[in-house]
Amino acid sequence: MFKPILKNLVEQTPGAQSAILMGCDGISVDHFTADVTVEEDGQSIAVEFAAVVTEVSHAASLLKVGGLDEIAVRCGNLSILLSMLTKEYFVALLVDRDGNAAKGRYLLRRDAHLLRAALD
Amino acid sequence: MFKPILKNLVEQTPGAQSAILMGCDGISVDHFTADVTVEEDGQSIAVEFAAVVTEVSHAASLLKVGGLDEIAVRCGNLSILLSMLTKEYFVALLVDRDGNAAKGRYLLRRDAHLLRAALD
Repeated sequence: MFKPILKNLVEQTPGAQSAILMGCDGISVDHFTADVTVEEDGQSIAVEFAAVVTEVSHAASLLKVGGLDEIAVRCGNLSILLSMLTKEYFVALLVDRDGNAAKGRYLLRRDAHLLRAALD
Repeated sequence: MFKPILKNLVEQTPGAQSAILMGCDGISVDHFTADVTVEEDGQSIAVEFAAVVTEVSHAASLLKVGGLDEIAVRCGNLSILLSMLTKEYFVALLVDRDGNAAKGRYLLRRDAHLLRAALD
């Protein structure tokens, strides 16, 4: 039920490696990876970033700047887009540095309601 | 030496509240705030996010995805843009939710070399 939505996110974003639906506890619910040889890397990255999501959510709540919606991280050879679906679940999209992270961000905003509906 | 560059970032970004040059230890080097009544909030936000920068930098290094360049966080009523200048210093730009964070990101990329040169 989640995989077709995750697959669509990866396939429509130039340079996307994988999309992972995760809990803030770091447990992956479902994922789609373009290249299975990098699948394990994507999982490790998402687990690390679950801790970041929890910390930023907590900081946002302390600082009264409203609920956390998105985090985008740009590193030397990867962009990591994290979009909150509910207070407990988020979707991570991993995009190559020379891929189109802006399109990925747009698609995450466009399709978040589909993942939320599937989570219900 | 930093203030004119920080002031320019705030004044050229629609909806920007403040720009803060910080160390990853959470100590502010310099800042410029558009509205002094929210100055203290900006400082608290930057201090909280110094911890996030350190954690994401550490994760990026563990995961071998290249050095951390930027983090963008979108919350209910604020966007927080963090751009690494060196391994130890970053600049934070706080933009209202209805401001132009994309322009802020562009200006941070454009002017990062000026802040780096001033840090040397």
